[in-house]
Amino acid sequence: MTQPFFDRLTDQVRTKKTPLVVGLDPRWSSLPETLKSVGDSLAEKAAAYRDFSIGILDVVAPLVPAVKPQVAFFEQLGWQGMQALAEVIDHARKLGVLLVMDGKRNDIGSTAEGYADGWLGESSAWRGDALTVSPYLGDDSLEPFVQVASDRAAGLFVLVKTSNPGGKMLQDLTADGSTIYQHVGGLVERLAADSAGACGYGVTGAVVGATYPEQLGELRALMPHTWFLVPGYGSQGGTAADVAPAFDANGLGAIVNSSRAIIFAHARDEFANLDWQQAVEAATRKAIDDLSSVATIR
Amino acid sequence: MTQPFFDRLTDQVRTKKTPLVVGLDPRWSSLPETLKSVGDSLAEKAAAYRDFSIGILDVVAPLVPAVKPQVAFFEQLGWQGMQALAEVIDHARKLGVLLVMDGKRNDIGSTAEGYADGWLGESSAWRGDALTVSPYLGDDSLEPFVQVASDRAAGLFVLVKTSNPGGKMLQDLTADGSTIYQHVGGLVERLAADSAGACGYGVTGAVVGATYPEQLGELRALMPHTWFLVPGYGSQGGTAADVAPAFDANGLGAIVNSSRAIIFAHARDEFANLDWQQAVEAATRKAIDDLSSVATIR
Repeated sequence: MTQPFFDRLTDQVRTKKTPLVVGLDPRWSSLPETLKSVGDSLAEKAAAYRDFSIGILDVVAPLVPAVKPQVAFFEQLGWQGMQALAEVIDHARKLGVLLVMDGKRNDIGSTAEGYADGWLGESSAWRGDALTVSPYLGDDSLEPFVQVASDRAAGLFVLVKTSNPGGKMLQDLTADGSTIYQHVGGLVERLAADSAGACGYGVTGAVVGATYPEQLGELRALMPHTWFLVPGYGSQGGTAADVAPAFDANGLGAIVNSSRAIIFAHARDEFANLDWQQAVEAATRKAIDDLSSVATIR
Repeated sequence: MTQPFFDRLTDQVRTKKTPLVVGLDPRWSSLPETLKSVGDSLAEKAAAYRDFSIGILDVVAPLVPAVKPQVAFFEQLGWQGMQALAEVIDHARKLGVLLVMDGKRNDIGSTAEGYADGWLGESSAWRGDALTVSPYLGDDSLEPFVQVASDRAAGLFVLVKTSNPGGKMLQDLTADGSTIYQHVGGLVERLAADSAGACGYGVTGAVVGATYPEQLGELRALMPHTWFLVPGYGSQGGTAADVAPAFDANGLGAIVNSSRAIIFAHARDEFANLDWQQAVEAATRKAIDDLSSVATIR
């Protein structure tokens, strides 16, 4: 019997001694030149995304608890891109690193069930360990995701307070004395509390951006059973100090994503003397070191 | 030069004399038995979804302005399902029926641009004419979609007031004197007004459910440049009378989706003497007739 996702994530964070997650966001214009020489049809680009992602996995899988493939970039290349994503997922599973699929999927009823069934669990078509989900459609739209995730020992990360400046347009509006992100956070926490596993965290996690450290601390206090996925660290401007409020007293309860600063490290001046995979490793170790100053994992 | 999407949609609605859109939502358990005899591996199911969808397209393309493939059900079958979706799209384009891709995609910055670039326009990987988008991430998350849609004469339908009961959890909260769906509706209308084409409607449409006819009428008045995509008619309980407030004075400004009641019409008692494609045609004609009582198209 597979352990609940957040129990497995806790084990992985303790084993790897870091909350760092590496985002797999292949962008054609930023790929190492050696990988772009094949050609630029959809199928050739998809093969390059696959080789790039697998090359990153080989470097980072021993170092971090999870990776976060961004579905958009694979989907951008049509079904050939999605076939490449399937190969990337298979490789990650062989290496034993957890897969947080960043798809921000959302719908209602049997359609939401279709997404959940497709993405969550080792027996699903996409074999993800967890999936990001967007909450505008409300509580009954989350139910099918929660049901499938619970049945299959998978996890969810629901958008609560996002890292982009425009996120505040809706999320920071106040209704009935609470902001919209507090309303969504409250729902996610209730679902998490109802399903808490051995680690104390439930089946629903939350996406809370590093770019709003005050709200991060506020939500950490309000959502004690909810694991956080924190984007916005690194290229988006969030620092280690900014993500510090995301962790619980044991240095757990949050994973911190970095994408561009790691996967495109070959373009950073400080790593100019390294090949692209060496640069990925150096940038990963640097981020792990940076985060170790604010999260002491017990 | 391709005309803007909503101008093309207006032409199609006038030509076909109906606002009916047929949703392509293949579900394995509801497929006609003859199509399920191939086997039930992911690849075999995907082939059945393709054959089923193409069989529907052949019947409905001459009758309706657009079809709405639900991406979730194809995605549920992994990349094989997505390959089947690509074939369905190619077939629809050959038949000249407009394609509203129901993916409810959403993200920020270059990731949102990835989705928009992948889904919108004939030159894109997926070749959709329009895409549904979820707004929780706020105004700057919609910008890349609007930019790409404008550049490629494609359209968007942003979730505003959805048809499910739980939609009200967030959407009906009141902040600064307006509901959340009014806030989102106001943003969508501003974007539409800024980009209105010959037909008077702009690049951003809105999803507004048939199950809340009062709000449908209210939003029609508040959003004069915004074309509506109306789900919830048929199987979800919305009647022709319920969708009546969605139309402008010319019987335009809204398309009304029906999925299950049409594509699985072979299971309806009234069509028991027909083969499955004949049942699809009969159900389509019946829905067109039903809607003609509330929308007189000029």
